[in-house]
Amino acid sequence: MAAEPLVVSVPEPEYAEALADVDGVEAIVWDMEAPHARGAEIRLAVLPYMTRLRLTDVTPGLDSLEVVQLQSAGYEHFVDDLPARVTLCNAAGVHDASTAELALTLTLASIRDIPEFVASQAHSRWEPLRLRSALADRRVLVVGYGQIGRAIARRFAPFEVTLTAVASRAREGDDLVPHVHAIDELPDLLPEHDVVVVIVPLTDATRGLFDGPMLGRMPDGALLVNVARGAVVDTDALVAECSTGRIRAAVDVTEPEPLPQDHPLWTTRGVLVTPHVGGATEAMRPRAIALVRRQVESMVSGSPVVNAVAGPLSAPST
Amino acid sequence: MAAEPLVVSVPEPEYAEALADVDGVEAIVWDMEAPHARGAEIRLAVLPYMTRLRLTDVTPGLDSLEVVQLQSAGYEHFVDDLPARVTLCNAAGVHDASTAELALTLTLASIRDIPEFVASQAHSRWEPLRLRSALADRRVLVVGYGQIGRAIARRFAPFEVTLTAVASRAREGDDLVPHVHAIDELPDLLPEHDVVVVIVPLTDATRGLFDGPMLGRMPDGALLVNVARGAVVDTDALVAECSTGRIRAAVDVTEPEPLPQDHPLWTTRGVLVTPHVGGATEAMRPRAIALVRRQVESMVSGSPVVNAVAGPLSAPST
Repeated sequence: MAAEPLVVSVPEPEYAEALADVDGVEAIVWDMEAPHARGAEIRLAVLPYMTRLRLTDVTPGLDSLEVVQLQSAGYEHFVDDLPARVTLCNAAGVHDASTAELALTLTLASIRDIPEFVASQAHSRWEPLRLRSALADRRVLVVGYGQIGRAIARRFAPFEVTLTAVASRAREGDDLVPHVHAIDELPDLLPEHDVVVVIVPLTDATRGLFDGPMLGRMPDGALLVNVARGAVVDTDALVAECSTGRIRAAVDVTEPEPLPQDHPLWTTRGVLVTPHVGGATEAMRPRAIALVRRQVESMVSGSPVVNAVAGPLSAPST
Repeated sequence: MAAEPLVVSVPEPEYAEALADVDGVEAIVWDMEAPHARGAEIRLAVLPYMTRLRLTDVTPGLDSLEVVQLQSAGYEHFVDDLPARVTLCNAAGVHDASTAELALTLTLASIRDIPEFVASQAHSRWEPLRLRSALADRRVLVVGYGQIGRAIARRFAPFEVTLTAVASRAREGDDLVPHVHAIDELPDLLPEHDVVVVIVPLTDATRGLFDGPMLGRMPDGALLVNVARGAVVDTDALVAECSTGRIRAAVDVTEPEPLPQDHPLWTTRGVLVTPHVGGATEAMRPRAIALVRRQVESMVSGSPVVNAVAGPLSAPST
C-alpha cells in the first residue's frame, strides 16, 4: 500500500506479532508509563489490562489519536477524560468465556462441596460416604441475559438443569431458553429456582437489587452466584440470610471490594468468596488480540470500529 | 388386571410411590436387614444403595426371585453369590449425570484456583489481581468414551475447548468429537492435551495405565482428572510428577481408598482430592427410580429387562 501506515500502539509484543500480517499497519509496543517518541503518529491506542492509568496521563501529545481501545468491559471512569475527537471502545466480549466459566466454577464448587473437601484435605481427612447435592435437576435462573448471560446459560445447558433467563425487558427466547422474562418478574421467579446467577450491569436500577426481601424470596437451600458487581447485592442482607444456613452464596464480587479482613462475609456459613477473578485469565489474551485485530482491519478499510461506547463514533444508547 | 400382581421389593418408600400407577404391580418396601414375611412372593428385588449386604444375606427364601436390581454400576462382587435362576442388573446410566458433573467440577475448581481461594478465605485474605489460568482454549482429552465419557464431553463442549476422545477401540465420532481414538494412541495423544479426564473401567488392561512414563508424557502444566478408579493411576508416580509442580491432578478416586491419613497424596502440591463422591448425589434417586420403573414395566409386559450383567437374561459380553 502506498498510503501512510496506520500507527497503532499496543501494550505487549504479542499484540504486535498478531498484527504483523495486516497490510498498512505499523504496531508499536508502548506500555504508556512514559510518553512515546512517536506518540503524535498513533491513531489507535490500546490500553494495558488492569491499568491504573487515566486518559489524562496518556492522551497529551497523541495528536493523531482517533480511537482508544480498552481491555476491560467497564469504561465509565474513562469517559470524562476522553478528548473530544476520540472514540472510546470497550472490550465487550473479551471476558465472556472467562466470566461465564467462573459462574459455572462457583456453582459447581459450592453444590459439590469443594470448600468442605479442601478443608478436609488440609487435615488429611477422607469424609465418610453420604448422599450429597448435585447440580443436575436444579432450576437455574440467569439474571442478566446479555452476551455473558447467554455464555453462562450455554455452559449450564448440558448439565440436565432447567434454565430460565431474566433481562431488563421481556423478549423472545433463543436456543437455550424458550422466553426471556422481564426483571419485574424476578420476585415471582425466585421462589421457583435453586440456583440464581447474577450477571446484570450495575446501574441505578440494579444497585441493591438483591436486598433482604428479594433474597428472602429464594427457596430454602438455594444458591446465589454473583459474577456481576458487588453492589447488586446488599452484603449485610446476604450475610444475614446465609448465616442461618437458609441459603448459600458464591460470589466473585463484593461490596465493599476488596473485602476488608474483618468483614463478616469471609466467615459466613455456606459462602464461597473469590477475589474478583472472573475476567482476569489467560482466556482474555487471544480474545483481546482478536478484537484489536478486528479494529485495526476496520480502520484500515475505513469501516466503523466495534464496541464504541463514547465519543464521535459511538452509537446513541438504545 | 386379573393376573397375579408382580411383587417387587424396593428399599425406600419413594420407589413404591413411583410405581403406584403401574398396573399389575405391588411394591413392598424392604430394607433387607431382616427377612421379609412376603419374601417368597418377590420377583424383582431392588437392593439399597451403598449397601454392605451380600446376596447370600438376601436371597434365601426368595423362592420367586427372577431379577436383582443393583443401584451401583459396579456389580463384580455380587456375581459369585447370584442364584442360578436369577438375573443381575446393574445401574448403568443412573450415576452418569452426577459423575460427569464432578469431572467438570474437579477440572474447573483446579484450573480456576478454588483450593487456593478457599485457603485464602479461611484467612480472610483477598488475593491481589493477576492473570490466572482458565479452561477456555484448553485441549481436553477424555480417556474412556462410554456413556459417562460422552456425558463428560457433552458438558465440556460449550467451554470453548478442543475435545478429543479415546476408547478401547478406534471408531467413528459423534456430535461431540470427529473421531474416537484407540487406547494404543494414548501415548501420542497425551503430549498434545492440557486436561486429561480418566473414566475408563478398571480392567487388567487399564490397571496402572497412568504409570510414571505415561504421566511423563503429559505436557508441563497439564491437569489429570480421575473419576474412574484409583488403581488406573499409579499413585506413587502421580505424587512424584505433581510434587515437582510439573503437572497437577484432581482425583475423586485413589489407590488405596480411603486414602490413609499419612498418605503423601493429601499434601502433594497441586493435587485436589475428593472422597469418591462422583456418583453419590441426589441426582441418582430420580434416575434410579426411573430405571426401576422401566424394569417393572418390562417384566409386567413380558419384555426383557435392561442392564442385565449376569444370569440367564444377560447377553454374552461383546
